Amino acid sequence: MGAGTKIIVATNSRPGSAKWCNAFEGSLPDTQFIPWDEAGEPVGADYAIVWQPAPALFVRETRLQAVFNLGAGIDSLLGLPELPGNLPIVRLEDAGMAEQMVEYVVYGLLRAAREFGVYEAQQQASEWSGLPPIDRLRWPVGVMGLGAIGERVARAVAQLGYPVAGWARRSREIDGVQVYGGAERLPAFLARTRVLVNLLPLTPETENILNRENLEQLLPRAYLINVARGRHLVEQDLLDLLACGRLAGALLDVFRSEPLPKNHPFWSHASITVTPHIAAITLREDTVHQIVNKIGNLKKGLPISGRVSREQGY
Amino acid sequence: MGAGTKIIVATNSRPGSAKWCNAFEGSLPDTQFIPWDEAGEPVGADYAIVWQPAPALFVRETRLQAVFNLGAGIDSLLGLPELPGNLPIVRLEDAGMAEQMVEYVVYGLLRAAREFGVYEAQQQASEWSGLPPIDRLRWPVGVMGLGAIGERVARAVAQLGYPVAGWARRSREIDGVQVYGGAERLPAFLARTRVLVNLLPLTPETENILNRENLEQLLPRAYLINVARGRHLVEQDLLDLLACGRLAGALLDVFRSEPLPKNHPFWSHASITVTPHIAAITLREDTVHQIVNKIGNLKKGLPISGRVSREQGY
Repeated sequence: MGAGTKIIVATNSRPGSAKWCNAFEGSLPDTQFIPWDEAGEPVGADYAIVWQPAPALFVRETRLQAVFNLGAGIDSLLGLPELPGNLPIVRLEDAGMAEQMVEYVVYGLLRAAREFGVYEAQQQASEWSGLPPIDRLRWPVGVMGLGAIGERVARAVAQLGYPVAGWARRSREIDGVQVYGGAERLPAFLARTRVLVNLLPLTPETENILNRENLEQLLPRAYLINVARGRHLVEQDLLDLLACGRLAGALLDVFRSEPLPKNHPFWSHASITVTPHIAAITLREDTVHQIVNKIGNLKKGLPISGRVSREQGY
Repeated sequence: MGAGTKIIVATNSRPGSAKWCNAFEGSLPDTQFIPWDEAGEPVGADYAIVWQPAPALFVRETRLQAVFNLGAGIDSLLGLPELPGNLPIVRLEDAGMAEQMVEYVVYGLLRAAREFGVYEAQQQASEWSGLPPIDRLRWPVGVMGLGAIGERVARAVAQLGYPVAGWARRSREIDGVQVYGGAERLPAFLARTRVLVNLLPLTPETENILNRENLEQLLPRAYLINVARGRHLVEQDLLDLLACGRLAGALLDVFRSEPLPKNHPFWSHASITVTPHIAAITLREDTVHQIVNKIGNLKKGLPISGRVSREQGY
């Protein structure tokens, strides 16, 4: 055992760390998975697998060769001053999340474009009244962020027959998706978008990107679907744009403060649907499989995907 | 003009007939499109394009070579005693309807499987509480009726990652869809299905097929999505099975009586979503294109698809 690999597992709760340890147990030969213990001693771990870990982890474990994040977003991890500047960080890619994001976004899109909310209101009044058939050309969808998940979402929406564009730092080719690259192309992207889907990583550049100035450039009666981070959205700007009718509605899964405080105006807003950060949940089995494969490759000196660039912030 | 083709256009309203006439105008050379006039004289039409036409049409126009139905379901047309037994009937195939049906069914499936209704109720109570992640294996979808539309729906649901089976008169191969063929395979199909999607044609064999005996064979807490015809469903059986918890919910677009009467219990039922027969609306442009092509082929003596079998009833 002494010569084997040691991996410390640290989440934001003791039961969480223990559960993930169990999930990884036996997945790699000659490897020990050790749950983080706030009151414990250094174990000399080779790798850490983390989700919102105690900052002390990075003070105590000084032999780490890499840290694996149990999620796609690494904004909270990068915010820790204790995190050594040269420690490689690997984020989760997809791991069952893309499929879930596709479902969530498709549901939100169809509910808006097919006016299911209107029909629900009619049902309340026992009112039988068909609306004109939908013209998909009037519902262009724009996906901000074209990582593994954003690309899957954009492709799925295109397959349903909606015009789809994507916006990312750099332009790239995606079949059936018109891609706008860089800050200078953001206005053109917004101007052709009615349903805006945010899947960006949270970085200093993208924080507050869903603000009045940008949201005002969308097509009239636009919808916002935010499934990335609460800090992308300037909440008061959304409320103002809904109040004046510039935006028609929003489906929000993430918030600046989670759980969303009881007295928050989003809860009771007729045009805002709130879900409790459930759009895409990390699936244990897929996650274990992905991280185990990457550790195996690292040990063999092979390249791995999902390495975070400190410079880009994702 | 005299030697040209005459096509009579007869829907269930005078403005409807005129509107469709306009849509077809100029689409075929040397062809006259004539709106049905209840008080008019015989025009000696070669073809009829109809939607719930006045029965007198078939008494007055005796030179018809074929009748084109402006919809996929021809049950009401076949019910007319005035319809000559040997007159070829051609039904609409897809014409933009498959895409719409896919949307409607996918929305209903996601709303059930992803528990969006539960989250809406939680929002009413300002309650932040995530449910366990969905396991798609617990949501097998079953599509009854595998015509052009049913097949598209089944494929789309399979692509989302749900287990999908189909049931049809005869077994056939569809990628990613387990097909059950014939009445003797219906129990096995129902027993593996949690979300039942009805896309069957209405015939004497399929009328009332959504009854207690069949619905009781579904997996526990099943959902029904009926987008075919109201007369497929025994309404009281659905109410009984919802009341005892055997079924969990239903999304209904079609009803035995339409518009659904004001005092009907479906309107106010907490587990039933009512929409006013809007799941798939005939799109004018696609419809004109399809019928014009078929008339062109008929004139050249070429085979066409969508010919109704009187024996099968669809």
